[in-house]
Amino acid sequence: MSGHSSESSGPTRQRLIDVAIELFKQNSVAGTSLQMISDELGLTKSAIYHHFRTRDELLTAVMEPLITEVAALVAAAEVHRGARARADHMLVGYASLAASQREVLSLLSGDPGVVALLRTRTEWAAVVERQMALFADVEPGLGGQVKAALVMSGIASAAGVDFGDVDEAALRDELIAAGRRTLGLRAPQGRTGV
Amino acid sequence: MSGHSSESSGPTRQRLIDVAIELFKQNSVAGTSLQMISDELGLTKSAIYHHFRTRDELLTAVMEPLITEVAALVAAAEVHRGARARADHMLVGYASLAASQREVLSLLSGDPGVVALLRTRTEWAAVVERQMALFADVEPGLGGQVKAALVMSGIASAAGVDFGDVDEAALRDELIAAGRRTLGLRAPQGRTGV
Repeated sequence: MSGHSSESSGPTRQRLIDVAIELFKQNSVAGTSLQMISDELGLTKSAIYHHFRTRDELLTAVMEPLITEVAALVAAAEVHRGARARADHMLVGYASLAASQREVLSLLSGDPGVVALLRTRTEWAAVVERQMALFADVEPGLGGQVKAALVMSGIASAAGVDFGDVDEAALRDELIAAGRRTLGLRAPQGRTGV
Repeated sequence: MSGHSSESSGPTRQRLIDVAIELFKQNSVAGTSLQMISDELGLTKSAIYHHFRTRDELLTAVMEPLITEVAALVAAAEVHRGARARADHMLVGYASLAASQREVLSLLSGDPGVVALLRTRTEWAAVVERQMALFADVEPGLGGQVKAALVMSGIASAAGVDFGDVDEAALRDELIAAGRRTLGLRAPQGRTGV
């Protein structure tokens, strides 16, 4: 972690969120305490309490923007008429999100603490289910469900892999290409570069 | 968790491992203490110490059989002459492992505690790297690496998804089919049912 402890700017909510993401990734959510986060920033516990009362409140603040984006993507994808067009819309958006927010998405995909929080936030779980359905509906039965699970988790995890010096657009395009292969989708006409 | 605490059979190493897997999955590795594991089995801490001195020792015992199997698969796959045959051998073996050991593999794929332990066991990290290379070598460049990452993580995560009442062979076949699609492999001639 670079530049931790007390720097010029005051203890902001965003700094807490950034450090939380870093520590959640290193130690998992359950292995990270509010104390560890405040220590990392050189804050007192009461300073962190001003922003977040519990670790789950902080985790919620980490997840919220991403879930909001996924929800908007799901709604936009569901408007298309065919299952393949719906899946492709969702895939392109999800891969873009994964490439631009690699840290958060790879955290959210695997941590048991995230899974547990999702279970308590039913409106969030519903978003994830609708996303899964958009992918799974391309092929009926277990085959479609397995491919959907592979794309959902695989893209999130792959976003967290260190591929060396790769730019965001190149990674996004390769995630889209891999997802289309898995789901059996062709690149839509008129779209280039993927 | 069903049937926890003191049953007829003595506190065996295997029971500790089974409970550990369950608690690691629920709370992540970092969120699970040896105390929690002994409590779950109604054991004293000294009884668990007889088998495992640290949580990492216990996690090592959970991972060891799986890594040994993957290492054997990697070695067998590397014998084939073409990159596609090598990747297919690895894929079929990995999907079979994932379908037969769903709990352990999905745990091992995402938990930061597992990632940290892998980093300290260089001979294990080498196995994972060779497995990744077998998948990535099908296609040169970033595209091959991204597809390999998607297959590696995706199969492990998909194995942990609840697809309802699905038998092991059906899941294995669908994981193989999805992996072949992603990597651009055809089913070898003479093989049926996939």
